[in-house]
Amino acid sequence: MTLPSSVSIVEVGPRDGLQGEARHVATADKIALINRLSACGLRRLEVSSFVSAKAIPQLADAAEVLAGIERAPGARYSVLVANERGYESAAAAGADEVAVFLSASEAHNQLNVGKSIADTLAKLRPVARRAAADGVPVRGYVSTVFGCSLAGKVEAARVERICGELADMGVGEISLGDTIGVAHPPQVQAMIEGLRARLGDLPLALHLHDTLGRGLANVWAGLQAGIRVFDSSVGGLGGCPNTPGGAGNIATEDLVSLLRAMGIACGVEEEAIRAVARFAASLVDHPLASHCAYAGGTAEERA
Amino acid sequence: MTLPSSVSIVEVGPRDGLQGEARHVATADKIALINRLSACGLRRLEVSSFVSAKAIPQLADAAEVLAGIERAPGARYSVLVANERGYESAAAAGADEVAVFLSASEAHNQLNVGKSIADTLAKLRPVARRAAADGVPVRGYVSTVFGCSLAGKVEAARVERICGELADMGVGEISLGDTIGVAHPPQVQAMIEGLRARLGDLPLALHLHDTLGRGLANVWAGLQAGIRVFDSSVGGLGGCPNTPGGAGNIATEDLVSLLRAMGIACGVEEEAIRAVARFAASLVDHPLASHCAYAGGTAEERA
Repeated sequence: MTLPSSVSIVEVGPRDGLQGEARHVATADKIALINRLSACGLRRLEVSSFVSAKAIPQLADAAEVLAGIERAPGARYSVLVANERGYESAAAAGADEVAVFLSASEAHNQLNVGKSIADTLAKLRPVARRAAADGVPVRGYVSTVFGCSLAGKVEAARVERICGELADMGVGEISLGDTIGVAHPPQVQAMIEGLRARLGDLPLALHLHDTLGRGLANVWAGLQAGIRVFDSSVGGLGGCPNTPGGAGNIATEDLVSLLRAMGIACGVEEEAIRAVARFAASLVDHPLASHCAYAGGTAEERA
Repeated sequence: MTLPSSVSIVEVGPRDGLQGEARHVATADKIALINRLSACGLRRLEVSSFVSAKAIPQLADAAEVLAGIERAPGARYSVLVANERGYESAAAAGADEVAVFLSASEAHNQLNVGKSIADTLAKLRPVARRAAADGVPVRGYVSTVFGCSLAGKVEAARVERICGELADMGVGEISLGDTIGVAHPPQVQAMIEGLRARLGDLPLALHLHDTLGRGLANVWAGLQAGIRVFDSSVGGLGGCPNTPGGAGNIATEDLVSLLRAMGIACGVEEEAIRAVARFAASLVDHPLASHCAYAGGTAEERA
């Protein structure tokens, strides 16, 4: 096993992180957050969502956010869309990439998208078609890949079938989501091996949660299995605010710190991302589930 | 790489976890904690310390604790000692095992033990000799193995030399401590390989901290490198109470949850250890840095 010399990080804090936050974050603060993230060296940023503003009022200002941010050279600004109408709004607002989403679990997809998986795929095909015509890259999120709080165990064959459908419609990268944080390293590795057989060298990303403390263990497992793109959220934004220790997305600064320790480049300045994590914490009304935002300073610098 | 069918957990919460706690924990509560831990299935428990009561007032009741606990069949109750006098007290109090300790970093050893490493080793040799004569197993802790906040980088050759000295004096198991939580998986694996060359098949344990979120990643790395004994602390006791997100020891319930997910037996009942973690949290005056004590319930059970 050879470790890569570099990997890519997809920063999802401004979208996935903020979307569930109870306290409204002002558009100007979102723009400041995104600008500070790109200034750290992040070059893939998911900045908002053109999904129903009624469903996600926190992200109703997606167009203003896209219009207000500074575009860092070489950076790609992505937004979430659920259907063709969302795609049109995203394209009009100047998104560089769109992300579509569905769940591997039928029950979770029904809850989250309000449709069957088959009906969701039918809504996504025209998005992929339109994006291909416009030359806009499409990322596909599959959630509950490693387990679901509603459906329990999720069969690998089901994940492979859904990812195959996304690949067939032209999705250029698939992000495998451990929505409830129950994945474990051998499972991650087996899942990736199985998907490789179906998807060939289609880029796969891991979207890991630290709910049970396994986030970085699964990063390491993913690296060993050849994953070169990892999603993370500054400050661990997107955790469960009402649960002590209840973490959500792995924190970008924790990921950056681990990668740096292992000698793997990711282009993100470590001290700067820790400062942005503390800024992100100031925007919400609860402590964040980050390790390095608070603890990373002295011990880490010296060792 | 074949995963083992089972591993051993050394529960260090009652000693390593409590020793730094500001709020005094009553002897009866310590005894209750230890009894509840053994009732979960834990069979190796480090319960107190016969190191200077002045240095660690929280553990001044070591003899009362050892006298008061119920001895679960097959369980081994260990205590920390620093010298021959401590060994005598431990033996008189009925400890099944003693643990000795030093740092791989000269600066940290000076701070923690108040002596050079050479002088510390000289103090430990008679302990090992007496214990061997009495048939009492001796465990050796080496701290700051993967980095030190005072000395920075710690050379593997230095760790190998110190572990070699412990092996030569008859220490039967060496626990490698990531005192400041900066170890990363490839480093863990390289360190273990290097030590194997020096120590042969002397049992090695990993004593990992989750300070930077890498605790379980290093468990996985250790498993891959052949480690079959892991230290952990119920509730993650031993964290840094004044640092949000500043975790110390990996939490026993997080380790148990990960092992169960991977199909590796450890003899510990998962729901029960989570309940003990919440009891442990009630004994101290700050939230604990556990993941599964709070978040493990529903999602984990179902997936």
